[in-house]
Amino acid sequence: MDENKNYKWVVARRPKGKPVKKDFELVTSDIPVISDGEVLLKTLYLGLAPVMRMYMQGNPTAGEKSLNIGDIIHGRGVAEIIESRNPDYKVGEKVQGQIGWQSYKASKLSFSEKFFNCPDKGINYAHYTATLGMTGLSAWGGFLDCGQPKEGDVVVVSGAAGGVGSIVVQLAKIYGCKVIGIAGSAEKCFWLSELGVDEVINYKKENVDTRLGHLCPSGIDIYFDNVGGEILQAALEHLAFEARIVLCGSISEYTQINSTGPKNYTNLRRVNGMMKGFFVYNYLNKFDNCMEALGGYISNKKLIPKLDISDGIETMPEALMRLYDRKNFGVQCCRVRRGPYDNAI
Amino acid sequence: MDENKNYKWVVARRPKGKPVKKDFELVTSDIPVISDGEVLLKTLYLGLAPVMRMYMQGNPTAGEKSLNIGDIIHGRGVAEIIESRNPDYKVGEKVQGQIGWQSYKASKLSFSEKFFNCPDKGINYAHYTATLGMTGLSAWGGFLDCGQPKEGDVVVVSGAAGGVGSIVVQLAKIYGCKVIGIAGSAEKCFWLSELGVDEVINYKKENVDTRLGHLCPSGIDIYFDNVGGEILQAALEHLAFEARIVLCGSISEYTQINSTGPKNYTNLRRVNGMMKGFFVYNYLNKFDNCMEALGGYISNKKLIPKLDISDGIETMPEALMRLYDRKNFGVQCCRVRRGPYDNAI
Repeated sequence: MDENKNYKWVVARRPKGKPVKKDFELVTSDIPVISDGEVLLKTLYLGLAPVMRMYMQGNPTAGEKSLNIGDIIHGRGVAEIIESRNPDYKVGEKVQGQIGWQSYKASKLSFSEKFFNCPDKGINYAHYTATLGMTGLSAWGGFLDCGQPKEGDVVVVSGAAGGVGSIVVQLAKIYGCKVIGIAGSAEKCFWLSELGVDEVINYKKENVDTRLGHLCPSGIDIYFDNVGGEILQAALEHLAFEARIVLCGSISEYTQINSTGPKNYTNLRRVNGMMKGFFVYNYLNKFDNCMEALGGYISNKKLIPKLDISDGIETMPEALMRLYDRKNFGVQCCRVRRGPYDNAI
Repeated sequence: MDENKNYKWVVARRPKGKPVKKDFELVTSDIPVISDGEVLLKTLYLGLAPVMRMYMQGNPTAGEKSLNIGDIIHGRGVAEIIESRNPDYKVGEKVQGQIGWQSYKASKLSFSEKFFNCPDKGINYAHYTATLGMTGLSAWGGFLDCGQPKEGDVVVVSGAAGGVGSIVVQLAKIYGCKVIGIAGSAEKCFWLSELGVDEVINYKKENVDTRLGHLCPSGIDIYFDNVGGEILQAALEHLAFEARIVLCGSISEYTQINSTGPKNYTNLRRVNGMMKGFFVYNYLNKFDNCMEALGGYISNKKLIPKLDISDGIETMPEALMRLYDRKNFGVQCCRVRRGPYDNAI
């Protein structure tokens, strides 16, 4: 990578099904020149999230504008301010926010870009794209606010070894729940067990419905859904009285043209159950509280954040594909260039 | 009808699709002889509810045992005690509870049959199978507890001219909401307007999705669902922030072998929306509160209960079919025999 150029990934075409390489195009330009009120950001890390494929589809979302062919793909990340014409920001400060898939950005750090400061805590800055960023807020807000956990609750988490899931399973243990994690490989299941998850289900090898029946004889109190589809339907067969389903993600459905919805949704009735939608940008006003809580858990080792890092901005498309191939292990992110604390936990 | 015989409707075969006459068989037997602790009930009215078809299917439900071929079909009704060997009950008292589709019943009025007294208020006793029975409790509990109405909320009710729906729309007006009723005929829509419903949609003539878009520019705060299927999906396209969907019934789906579920359920996410299941038997402990509230609204004419009465126990199958043909207008019930206050409102 030439540090004197700006590398940008743009939408080459709308993805059909899972994203593939031809959907992306890498273009280069000069490093932007900043105006009054702006800062120049040098990207350190970019986070990956399933929603990026939806942006590429041109789908409108409440949080970010829809993209056209040729537009820089939306993506939040961590950057260092290397030049400032904004009195509120100093050179050397690190910020996280809507940078886009690019190696430099000129920005006013405006409200719509949702930038937050990244204090120097001696930890890997990648965590600010992950547990100490929107991924952490998704896990914390979804689990606590929609899930309403109580000690002793039976909590089932799909995509449990993924970005949000791996945080939720640990939060559920902190809150005194019995936790069942669903993941797609023996390695992920083993890692979940090491994290303290009580029971694991490998959905590629086991019948999830049958296993949930065995593991949850009194039913599921909280089902935290990251995947949708058949696993959501299986969970709906085993709800406890007043069960809460947290709809955080449904990655198994995003690439389907005709997704059908959970045909057994009426099972919510007999148990006075609830299915609650969660969208992280609706929780930005709780960001500080969340960071304080999660930062504390990380400091006292109650929460072990897991990063799945790919190196170099040229790996961004592959990193997004890993999410859709369900290969990521913890929060998927990309190290655009080396920075401080790269090797710290 | 020979008053010296007991007439009983039993399951002749499992319904396929909508119930048809051949699914039912009328059998006669002697009037039961009661034992110590029992009373002899003479049925005045029987209520009809979509769930009865599910009982006939042999589906287990949380409230009533599943039925076999030849079993008397479950059904709640109002009866007069005409003989008593139970010191707690006197001859002449009226009770409502699980009588079954029969003209007499020997009963201990046990907890599992969920009997309640029917005080003599000078009103048609049929209301105790309807607004002052489980139908009223479904409307009241579902709307207040799951819907959590606030003044000014935009409330959409499907099956609005049906049993539960016609009570919910009136409750919503009492709570100061803007109410949109969806029904399937011009007559029903006209009646809803007369009840004070702000806007009506005839789903057989109009595109529900388009109309909801026009009528709810700021979205739907509460969608009270009695029908499921396409209308539920249309409502999911127009949710306001923190919308509540009350899942009370889904009659459009009961007869489908492959019902698919709402494919756009993930719309709950962006608005922090909630879909909450409701089952009336979970609310029995609030029965007295509900009856006091609804009885008061009826007395002061804020709530106009609507009965759709068929005459004679021989009409029970047709009365159930009316529900599935969406012909009923208010709460469907059957007058098994003449009793006091038959012509009172």
